[in-house]
This record gives sequence, C-alpha cells and structure tokens, in this order.
Amino acid sequence: MNNRLSKQLEFSLEIDKEKNVFRQTHLSGHGRNENDAEHAWHMAIMSYILREYANEEVDIAHVMLMCLIHDIVEIDAGDTYAYDEDGKKTQADREEAAKQRIFSMLPDDQRDELTAMFDEFEAGETAEARYARAMDNLQPLILNDSNDGGDWKEHGVRAEQVYGRQVRTRLGSEELYEVTDSIIKKHIEKGNLK
Amino acid sequence: MNNRLSKQLEFSLEIDKEKNVFRQTHLSGHGRNENDAEHAWHMAIMSYILREYANEEVDIAHVMLMCLIHDIVEIDAGDTYAYDEDGKKTQADREEAAKQRIFSMLPDDQRDELTAMFDEFEAGETAEARYARAMDNLQPLILNDSNDGGDWKEHGVRAEQVYGRQVRTRLGSEELYEVTDSIIKKHIEKGNLK
Repeated sequence: MNNRLSKQLEFSLEIDKEKNVFRQTHLSGHGRNENDAEHAWHMAIMSYILREYANEEVDIAHVMLMCLIHDIVEIDAGDTYAYDEDGKKTQADREEAAKQRIFSMLPDDQRDELTAMFDEFEAGETAEARYARAMDNLQPLILNDSNDGGDWKEHGVRAEQVYGRQVRTRLGSEELYEVTDSIIKKHIEKGNLK
Repeated sequence: MNNRLSKQLEFSLEIDKEKNVFRQTHLSGHGRNENDAEHAWHMAIMSYILREYANEEVDIAHVMLMCLIHDIVEIDAGDTYAYDEDGKKTQADREEAAKQRIFSMLPDDQRDELTAMFDEFEAGETAEARYARAMDNLQPLILNDSNDGGDWKEHGVRAEQVYGRQVRTRLGSEELYEVTDSIIKKHIEKGNLK
C-alpha cells in the first residue's frame, strides 16, 4: 500500500474515537447522552433538509463536510458544554493542539484542507460556516425540546445564556431563529429555563 | 410555523432514532457495538477522504448524502447483519415499509428526492452508489481489522462470505478492493476467518 493511502486509512480509523466523546445533550425519548459523531451526522442531514432557510446561498457539500468534521478535535480536547464558562476559557488551546495532532495524520494537502475547514467553522465568517453553526445550535435544541428541556433543567441554564448562543443561529438563518425563539419562549413559560 | 417547515423538523427529530439501531460491528479498541448513525457519519467522511480512489468520477456531495441516509429505514426495519442469510430474506419488505413511512414525513418533493436516493444506493447502478457501497463495506472492515477480526470470530463468518460481499467494494474502487483483499488474507492466515 502506498504511503498516502496508508495515512488516509490511519486517519479514518483514528476518527472512530469521536464516537466515544459524549455530550450533555440527551437523545429524544429521554434517551442516553448523545456522542459527537451522532451529533455531526444529525447536523449534516438537517443542513441538507433545511438548506432553503439559509440566509445566504450556500455550497451544501461544503456545509455538510464542515458539520461532519467540526468536532473531530474533541477526540483529544473533550466536549465543552455550551454553558460551561470555565471550560470555555481553555477550550481554544486544547482544540488547537488536537487539531494539529489529528489532521496531521492525513497527507499534507488533506491536512491543510481539513484544518482550513475546521478554522472556517470556528471563525463563522463565511455563508457556509454561519449556516453550519446554526445547525450546531438547532440540532441539540430540538432534542432538548423533545425531552421537555431536561438538559437545561439538569444544568440550571438561564434563558439569557440560551439566547446568547442563539444569536449565531440568526446569523445563519432568520427563519430557523424564529423557530428557536418560539421554543425558548415555550420553555421559559413552562419554567424549564430560568 | 408553516406546514413545510413543521414537516421538515418532525423528520429531523424522527431520524434521531437511528442512533438506537445497533450493528454487529464493534468500535475500535474492542469497544461497544456501533450504531447506524455513527456508521453513516464515518462512511461519509471516509468517502470524502478517499474519493481519489473511486473507479469513476463521482459527485461527492451526492455520495456523502447517500452515505448519511442509507440506513434510515433501519429505524423501523432493524439492522440486518451482512451474513444473516435468514434475515436477508425479509429485509427488502421490512425496509420498503419503513421507507414509505419515514420519508413520507417530509414535504412531497423531499420525500421523493430522499426515496430516490435511498433506492439509488440499494440498486448500486450509478457511479455514486457503487462508490458509496464500497464505503459501506470498507468502514466496518477497518474497524473489525483493528479488533483482530473479533466480529467475524463471534459469528463464525467464512472467508467466502466476506469475499462475496467485497465484490461490491471492487465495483466502487479497485484500489480499495486491494486493501480489503490484503486485510482478508491476513485474517485467514491468522485463523480469524474460516
């Protein structure tokens, strides 16, 4: 086997570990915690199904791929809960080191391509990244909504924190932001969000 | 919320259930059984990373989407192990009913689009389907290889069964078929495959 293919297969095996990185979100039906691979799969399909609501025209293949790879760094860095303010202070450093190690398993051209795509998602400054980041918020929101806001109740999350995060959803899709807004209002009314 | 968006969000929530459909394959590191959503996510990324080895030119967005949705019917139909000959007799009927129910949750145009994509994968008669089906074989093979052939040993799988399935890999990629061939030969030699 040539060295290039060998590197690509080693990377393919390495990312299997993302299935062991568990998030705070629970599966629908009051299920177990969701892992990063499942979250990414779900986001990628939703990005395709809901693409007509993106604020700007997007290259949907690029969006899907960004969704699929955006959490690979968490194999080393672990998941940082959206409302874990202490964890978020060290998140960038932990993820930077992970990015270097994991994407460097690929041939140089693909290392550079995937690193750029990861950085693009993080920066949120392209139409594709803005829309992909809206999916990153919407996907756990619909699961949590289906579980009567259980993830918020467990962590005592405040409405202002959720709104702070959903600002990003609006940058990707005004119409989907309206959905998230009505979901949040419902849970404030029910007392699930402080 | 308009009816179209409402249907799209209901479908998005429904497919969450795919994370509860477990396969016979185990995660690397002698981990737990893998589920369908994780398998689909892994296949989609591998299809992108390895696309230079596809026998024919492929529309990679189409391949990735086919990978992502190809097991959604298993929410109702359950997973049928690749070497379960009894299960395979009823697989088509079970999956047909599931396909009708699940994709019909979407607006009609998207129902038709995703149904066509599912059928395309199953038929394996386009360049994209041939390559996506090669991923469907290669992904569990590299996990099983990393676990010293544990899935084959557990089920007493014979080398001829594995070769029967890998015919499909060759239709999608001659080069990746060479990889699977050398993996299979190694495990025959080790006594992991009868």
